[in-house]
Amino acid sequence: MKTLHVELGDRRYPIHIGPGLLARPELLTPCIPGRQALVVSNTTVAPLYLEPVRASLDGLRHEAVILPDGEQYKTLDTLNEIFTALLNHRFDRNCTVIALGGGVIGDMAGFAAACYQRGVHFIQIPTTLLAQVDSSVGGKTAVNHPFGKNMIGAFYQPLGVLADTDTLATLPDRELSAGLAEVIKYGLIRDLPFLEWLEANLEALMARDAAALSEAIDRSCRNKAEIVAADERETGERALLNLGHTFGHAIETGVGYGQWLHGEAVATGMVMAADLSARLGWLNREQVERVRALLARARLPVQPPMALTPDDFLRLMAVDKKVKDGRLRLILLRNLGQAVIASDINPRLLIETLETSL
Amino acid sequence: MKTLHVELGDRRYPIHIGPGLLARPELLTPCIPGRQALVVSNTTVAPLYLEPVRASLDGLRHEAVILPDGEQYKTLDTLNEIFTALLNHRFDRNCTVIALGGGVIGDMAGFAAACYQRGVHFIQIPTTLLAQVDSSVGGKTAVNHPFGKNMIGAFYQPLGVLADTDTLATLPDRELSAGLAEVIKYGLIRDLPFLEWLEANLEALMARDAAALSEAIDRSCRNKAEIVAADERETGERALLNLGHTFGHAIETGVGYGQWLHGEAVATGMVMAADLSARLGWLNREQVERVRALLARARLPVQPPMALTPDDFLRLMAVDKKVKDGRLRLILLRNLGQAVIASDINPRLLIETLETSL
Repeated sequence: MKTLHVELGDRRYPIHIGPGLLARPELLTPCIPGRQALVVSNTTVAPLYLEPVRASLDGLRHEAVILPDGEQYKTLDTLNEIFTALLNHRFDRNCTVIALGGGVIGDMAGFAAACYQRGVHFIQIPTTLLAQVDSSVGGKTAVNHPFGKNMIGAFYQPLGVLADTDTLATLPDRELSAGLAEVIKYGLIRDLPFLEWLEANLEALMARDAAALSEAIDRSCRNKAEIVAADERETGERALLNLGHTFGHAIETGVGYGQWLHGEAVATGMVMAADLSARLGWLNREQVERVRALLARARLPVQPPMALTPDDFLRLMAVDKKVKDGRLRLILLRNLGQAVIASDINPRLLIETLETSL
Repeated sequence: MKTLHVELGDRRYPIHIGPGLLARPELLTPCIPGRQALVVSNTTVAPLYLEPVRASLDGLRHEAVILPDGEQYKTLDTLNEIFTALLNHRFDRNCTVIALGGGVIGDMAGFAAACYQRGVHFIQIPTTLLAQVDSSVGGKTAVNHPFGKNMIGAFYQPLGVLADTDTLATLPDRELSAGLAEVIKYGLIRDLPFLEWLEANLEALMARDAAALSEAIDRSCRNKAEIVAADERETGERALLNLGHTFGHAIETGVGYGQWLHGEAVATGMVMAADLSARLGWLNREQVERVRALLARARLPVQPPMALTPDDFLRLMAVDKKVKDGRLRLILLRNLGQAVIASDINPRLLIETLETSL
């Protein structure tokens, strides 16, 4: 087992990574200050992993709420089911909400914990690669609104994270690939040696080699933890984590939540960001191709959906959170391993990227 | 005009109190960092005060959303109308939400500001006495759930508060009284000289004497600001502000939101808390009568609704946020001007209070 800490002062918390963690209550119970725990899971994950987690909670009062599975359920209405469960069980301000599932469950359970009685304790047990390398670090929680993704949420940190790599055994291939998109992102934005390691080890990761997965999760979380410790509320450097996300959110919203996986949309978005970076003279075409090839090897889409026009993109990108006072900001690549925040992008170049990609 | 500051480090903010403030854009605009402002108001307040506020926003992009008036609309569904307005107008992360109305509007607009894009700027323009002395200080925001009041919310501080005493001219008598309940509360929990001042000046306040109202608002806000600066997230002393609230929330929930005003329920709750304090030997009967008499002079109810039984109270109080790990905590009075947090209250004495009051 590897353990790293996200350094946020008095909200410092541990991330444990490795196999067999669900069966180790001594990792979970130190993160539960009170006597009440609500496990939030979904209809796919609960049959597989709810019982071992509840067994780890033996001695506490523990309940569970099982939500429908999918990004299309990441809504205020589903969030309210968590509040109703907490109130039905008369859970108080010292209770703990435990997210058991992927990013959607983590985002909703975390936001519910942030809001219930204005804030209760929170623990993450991410069961997808994407959640283990992305949403488990950094405290971003949210639900979607029909007009925009993740538009309603909070920054809220867990007391601890258990990333049990055994849970990846049951992950569908498509979701493994989606997680690898975010792993590759860390290499692209700030860690060229990690990018090169990924190029050398991608087949091992695709084959779910346990040691390779643990290494990739650990290096991803360390990269993200460094960024989050420096800029918790995304006033600066943290925005770099959004490489590919403005394009990606436009895809997710444009085709309707639940059609593309988040990581798939980000993968295509990163190719588009690399293309635009090349048009600005920052990358050469070989580097763009290197980005595209690595993502394609991970069996990720590298081209946006045919149904979206450049105009659709421009409209959908205008409501993204990365817009500031009406001006579009994008995360682009100055070089491989070096992302930057770019403002005042020449709209003609952006349209060229959209027209060439579509 | 009086100005005081709530001392919260880098989130320090000013409260301006006095007549004619709505007509002074120089007080409002320094609190708006960006170029976009959404005024959140309701169908009662907007016809009276929306235009002067929008006039003060001249030069910015300003929009308004008008919600139905009443505690029964303080729900996730109404909250979502604010999100929809923000997204419809394509407001970004640097926008400002301005609450123009009473406590319900302040609570909802503040919670919307806390959640929209994980937090945007927020300003309060409270137009009721209750909101001016209570919800404008301290950053508590929330909506109700059918199973409990203020169960879903956040701690979120405004960048500034304008308490224009002219807006109290249009306040219904019943709401003026409800505000006085919270004013009297500050005297009861920590400021005996203020309690005595209120006993001497209650008729002037009831007659809406401008100088008396400004003085009462200023002294109330100073008391609350001191408590909040010492204990922003209610881990200790801040809980004292809940004198009368556990009984009061039970009344509000028990009779259905919108039947009793919050201040009315708190007034009755404070009489019940004083009665229980007397049963514990902390107050004498003359002091309980002094509390009851002052609240009655403010034309506030001092007796719970006939429809609620002691069992109703016990059931409703068990889900209150002041419950910790299943044990009931209440704010009671060690003396007039000295509130304390009381745990492990003898249930027999509590039931005596309920049976005698009902």
